[in-house]
Amino acid sequence: MGNVFGTLFRVATFGESHGAAVGCVVDGCPSNLPLSEDDIQTDLDRRAPGQSSITTPRKEADKCQILSGVYEGKTLGTPICVVVKNENQHSKDYSEIAKLWRPSHADYTYDMKFGLRDPRGGGRSSARETIGRVAAAAIAKKFLFGVQIRAWVESVGSICMPYMERTPTLEEVEASPARCPDRDTSEHMVEFIKRAKAQCDSLGATIRCRISGVPAGWGEPVFDRLEAELAKAMLSIPAVKGFEIGSGFAGARMTGSMHNDIFYADGGKVRTRTNNAGGTLGGISSGEDIDFRIALKPTATILKEQETLDKNLNAVKFKGVGRHDPCVAPRAVPIVEAMAALVLADMKLKQLARKVL
Amino acid sequence: MGNVFGTLFRVATFGESHGAAVGCVVDGCPSNLPLSEDDIQTDLDRRAPGQSSITTPRKEADKCQILSGVYEGKTLGTPICVVVKNENQHSKDYSEIAKLWRPSHADYTYDMKFGLRDPRGGGRSSARETIGRVAAAAIAKKFLFGVQIRAWVESVGSICMPYMERTPTLEEVEASPARCPDRDTSEHMVEFIKRAKAQCDSLGATIRCRISGVPAGWGEPVFDRLEAELAKAMLSIPAVKGFEIGSGFAGARMTGSMHNDIFYADGGKVRTRTNNAGGTLGGISSGEDIDFRIALKPTATILKEQETLDKNLNAVKFKGVGRHDPCVAPRAVPIVEAMAALVLADMKLKQLARKVL
Amino acid sequence: MGNVFGTLFRVATFGESHGAAVGCVVDGCPSNLPLSEDDIQTDLDRRAPGQSSITTPRKEADKCQILSGVYEGKTLGTPICVVVKNENQHSKDYSEIAKLWRPSHADYTYDMKFGLRDPRGGGRSSARETIGRVAAAAIAKKFLFGVQIRAWVESVGSICMPYMERTPTLEEVEASPARCPDRDTSEHMVEFIKRAKAQCDSLGATIRCRISGVPAGWGEPVFDRLEAELAKAMLSIPAVKGFEIGSGFAGARMTGSMHNDIFYADGGKVRTRTNNAGGTLGGISSGEDIDFRIALKPTATILKEQETLDKNLNAVKFKGVGRHDPCVAPRAVPIVEAMAALVLADMKLKQLARKVL
Amino acid sequence: MGNVFGTLFRVATFGESHGAAVGCVVDGCPSNLPLSEDDIQTDLDRRAPGQSSITTPRKEADKCQILSGVYEGKTLGTPICVVVKNENQHSKDYSEIAKLWRPSHADYTYDMKFGLRDPRGGGRSSARETIGRVAAAAIAKKFLFGVQIRAWVESVGSICMPYMERTPTLEEVEASPARCPDRDTSEHMVEFIKRAKAQCDSLGATIRCRISGVPAGWGEPVFDRLEAELAKAMLSIPAVKGFEIGSGFAGARMTGSMHNDIFYADGGKVRTRTNNAGGTLGGISSGEDIDFRIALKPTATILKEQETLDKNLNAVKFKGVGRHDPCVAPRAVPIVEAMAALVLADMKLKQLARKVL
Repeated sequence: MGNVFGTLFRVATFGESHGAAVGCVVDGCPSNLPLSEDDIQTDLDRRAPGQSSITTPRKEADKCQILSGVYEGKTLGTPICVVVKNENQHSKDYSEIAKLWRPSHADYTYDMKFGLRDPRGGGRSSARETIGRVAAAAIAKKFLFGVQIRAWVESVGSICMPYMERTPTLEEVEASPARCPDRDTSEHMVEFIKRAKAQCDSLGATIRCRISGVPAGWGEPVFDRLEAELAKAMLSIPAVKGFEIGSGFAGARMTGSMHNDIFYADGGKVRTRTNNAGGTLGGISSGEDIDFRIALKPTATILKEQETLDKNLNAVKFKGVGRHDPCVAPRAVPIVEAMAALVLADMKLKQLARKVL
Repeated sequence: MGNVFGTLFRVATFGESHGAAVGCVVDGCPSNLPLSEDDIQTDLDRRAPGQSSITTPRKEADKCQILSGVYEGKTLGTPICVVVKNENQHSKDYSEIAKLWRPSHADYTYDMKFGLRDPRGGGRSSARETIGRVAAAAIAKKFLFGVQIRAWVESVGSICMPYMERTPTLEEVEASPARCPDRDTSEHMVEFIKRAKAQCDSLGATIRCRISGVPAGWGEPVFDRLEAELAKAMLSIPAVKGFEIGSGFAGARMTGSMHNDIFYADGGKVRTRTNNAGGTLGGISSGEDIDFRIALKPTATILKEQETLDKNLNAVKFKGVGRHDPCVAPRAVPIVEAMAALVLADMKLKQLARKVL
Repeated sequence: MGNVFGTLFRVATFGESHGAAVGCVVDGCPSNLPLSEDDIQTDLDRRAPGQSSITTPRKEADKCQILSGVYEGKTLGTPICVVVKNENQHSKDYSEIAKLWRPSHADYTYDMKFGLRDPRGGGRSSARETIGRVAAAAIAKKFLFGVQIRAWVESVGSICMPYMERTPTLEEVEASPARCPDRDTSEHMVEFIKRAKAQCDSLGATIRCRISGVPAGWGEPVFDRLEAELAKAMLSIPAVKGFEIGSGFAGARMTGSMHNDIFYADGGKVRTRTNNAGGTLGGISSGEDIDFRIALKPTATILKEQETLDKNLNAVKFKGVGRHDPCVAPRAVPIVEAMAALVLADMKLKQLARKVL
Repeated sequence: MGNVFGTLFRVATFGESHGAAVGCVVDGCPSNLPLSEDDIQTDLDRRAPGQSSITTPRKEADKCQILSGVYEGKTLGTPICVVVKNENQHSKDYSEIAKLWRPSHADYTYDMKFGLRDPRGGGRSSARETIGRVAAAAIAKKFLFGVQIRAWVESVGSICMPYMERTPTLEEVEASPARCPDRDTSEHMVEFIKRAKAQCDSLGATIRCRISGVPAGWGEPVFDRLEAELAKAMLSIPAVKGFEIGSGFAGARMTGSMHNDIFYADGGKVRTRTNNAGGTLGGISSGEDIDFRIALKPTATILKEQETLDKNLNAVKFKGVGRHDPCVAPRAVPIVEAMAALVLADMKLKQLARKVL
């Protein structure tokens, strides 16, 4: 219930933040694809904490191990289980958190739903759960030949980079501690994040993701439209509060004559002069870049004292301690890319399954 | 592939705009619930065209018939098939549309995906497909005791109503041809839509939806979060380009100390002082109102001449003809409510299935 | 819940025996396949009652109508809804049956599960439900190129035909009122069934099904083995009590040296000298004929008086009335073929989805 | 694809025989249930090799570890990952097996389906895969309150125990090395198996399983009937070639007046005088014992020389080496019980989800 994603390329993630391990099982990966732990580790390292001055200095090795589904460096077509051991299982005292509900965390709702929860490091609602997703996506990318998925931070708080027509390179994104490819904006963002941190506060952000190389025809009308699956995938990431594709909310203020994307032929290839659609029509990829944005709320954990309730409904004070990212956006970039990859992998396989003629 | 929604309350829709019929099959509806064709018809009538001066004057009877799953006015627990016959099957000449791709319609992508399409009235990509969703939702609402789902138009083009703290009544929404419960704004919207129509153009819009009465505990972490399922449900509606819940994109510009919703006890009930979360925490309902907004692009069909391509990649001219809504938002309101109901119905049943103790 | 079959070629059936209609919705049918109502009607006619002296003389027209998913004689790739109207909705008085539980029928268990039931003609548990399956299978067969599915009655009561090494032709099967391709046995069966009928009794039977033309590689280990899906498909048919593939229960009495099927090369093609496996190894088709048998219990409705209980747990007498098949096997033959086709259609599409290289 | 079982209590298994580990992830387990590694280990130990004189003397520790989903001895409602490390990863030379297709093994079909395979110990098609199933079932049993699942060996080769009206105790089954609760028959079986082993041959067998304590109402018509899901579950076990419930194939030779199970009231409880149905009517449990049998083919690996083909289609000789069970039935008993538990767990949760009133 709720921990499985996809129909044909099906990913189950498991693991609590401070349990024995986190990881995933991928069922439905095609066979005969080269795959090593290094392939997965590269992507995991991008989401690990402690990468820069503005992310939490907490160091986690997060070394992955492939337990099944690969033989002599090739996928077998059988389930691939990847695990990452948790190393900080007994690091801290969680008895206070166990008794109260932190504001804007999932403590209260987990208690209501399940009748209990693992209070250590957020348990299942921790962002460590996304390790399994990133690992699964590293596998998915092995057969997304020609598809390039690139995400980057577009705004942090009120600081927003100028619109970028071209898609930045991976190097441009990674060169910035904020994962914002515009150098000037990136510097401002870093300053802004540091100041928020100094003020024991946190910041929201937006991330843009652009995908090129998807041929026309992926995506399933009616309910499983490509944009619907992307929206679900993105809103399944912790802290995401919004999704828009193409013109998005701005498109709601436009007229049809402004908004419609005009088809033209570019040397035998069908193109549109604008891309307000964001790469899909009727839920199916058009061959234009898939282009979407997401909104991230500010990190819920802040080092300021806040009021809240304990389990007996008594008013209590709570102050976050420890090391937390004041803005999750830079580390969310590879997670956005991962979820996009999982959507596309499933869509590609579904479209293959239609080719009986 | 793509035409089924839900796990336990599972809805399959079928039908092309100008085929013999459209409809749905609902599998998993609990038994012993009172259900009649009138219950469904009431909701279908809200989405029918020709209801006001600003919707298309096209009249469709859209009378539903229940073919199965109901006996002596009660649901049997077996599949409920609802059909609505199409009455305008042979109304028009579609030979031109069959040969070209209308801008910002799904003609091109359907051709690329399937190798053919039904050109009559948009075929499967027509908004008539949503009849099956509305019918299914009318059934879902039969066991969503105590849950109130209310959607309304918040903006049309650049005209936006003031933020409404209280949830409007159904009567307030229905009293407005624009389905905007703020009277002054509604009048402006109607004028604005009429002007767009006179200019052979169309308009985008936003719709807000607020849901009260959902107890804490619905929604499934990790992938099937309540907000993720809502996002998917909304983006599966034709013309929807964006979704945001609670603070949404505005939240991305806030700090944690502003954004966090503080818990307090209200006479034995756990509440939060603000609702930036929009009614969910960690993907699970908190008991606060679920509050989200969607963006609708302007209607793709406009009565102005546009350039496009035919199937041989020749540049051709195309001008929409016939009767189309210049702004789909008013008629989309019941569809937004319907999709929300389908999400909640499934979530309620899933949560029931966890109660073994 | 329970009324949907398949993952990629997904069939939902609906309808009660004496409701408005029975039928199916097929989601996931590939596009561009020729399909007409006649294609479906041909298969429906084979399962209709009143075909011979030993089936019920009840005449049902059972004319199918395609409501969606087909345009100009080709499948669109969108859901195909097929309906067959029920013509005997008000034919009889069911007030007695509504109050008691017929022995070996589903009356009692439906009441326990759902709290109510449609007592007319068995409601949802009627064999009329299989109309939707046969219709869906007629569609499935449109892309099962080269696959031949042939079922026939092998035994009725204690009368069993000799083992038939070759697969009989459709004509041989259809020439027999008992659908037993061995002429002598068929004659005995017909006599035997007539005698049972005269005695107000009913008979069990076995059906064999042999499928040729399935290439090696269909079927999904571990849980969705080809034989597991076939077993489920067969046991989902009313009155089926057993399934065996290849050597089946007889294989349980053999030694490994007798049972193992020895591989050899037949002009570049891999074959086995025997087929105790019944066409699958490890859940995957081997290229040999898929060969299985099912057991059918005697028809539960008999025209003799039996004891039973009413809903108040009073002992009452019940005697079946009306027209019923004393042996359902002849009419079950096309249903067995239909369910086999649904399994293979889904397996074929799944295998296609693995071909990324 | 194929490695996931169940809808609400959803089990994914993973692992090759000689890869790093085998195991499972269970999604959808209700929360607040006591669960420890010992609970799982007890069941795993029953399927481990080396338990008696007639099973392979190979010793595998098969110690399980719970990686997630349990906190302070209670299930969290989140995914439970259980792993068992493989200890004999590098034990043997598999270069011969890698090049040829062993008769009646899955080597050939895996090669055809996937284009490669892990030749070590059968890879994914090894019976070690069932470790994940047994572990998952140990979890399922935690909320199958009042349900007793008991399987035993009824026949080995031609040696069959007398029909046992009462259900044997666990102790009676476990007391026999053959897991046959009839002492005399058990002794004959053990002798028979030893003789087959001495002759480098193997034996088929049948297993009966009887389940008591299932209330009326579990199971989903139409396709997901309780017996259909059981049939699928059983045929998904390696080496199973047949399934019959209640009267099964014997019922095919009976008349309706013999076969029908007559209802009567036993002190307010509805019972039937016979149980030819085997505990279900119309796919739904009736409250009577669920009673089914399965057929197991003889172990494919025999220590006699057999002809076969290599990958270049050359005829070659092959002789099994190493330690193998000459009859898998005794060790299959807990696997049959496990798969039955997985079916019932899912059915119980599905029925809970229907209780909205």
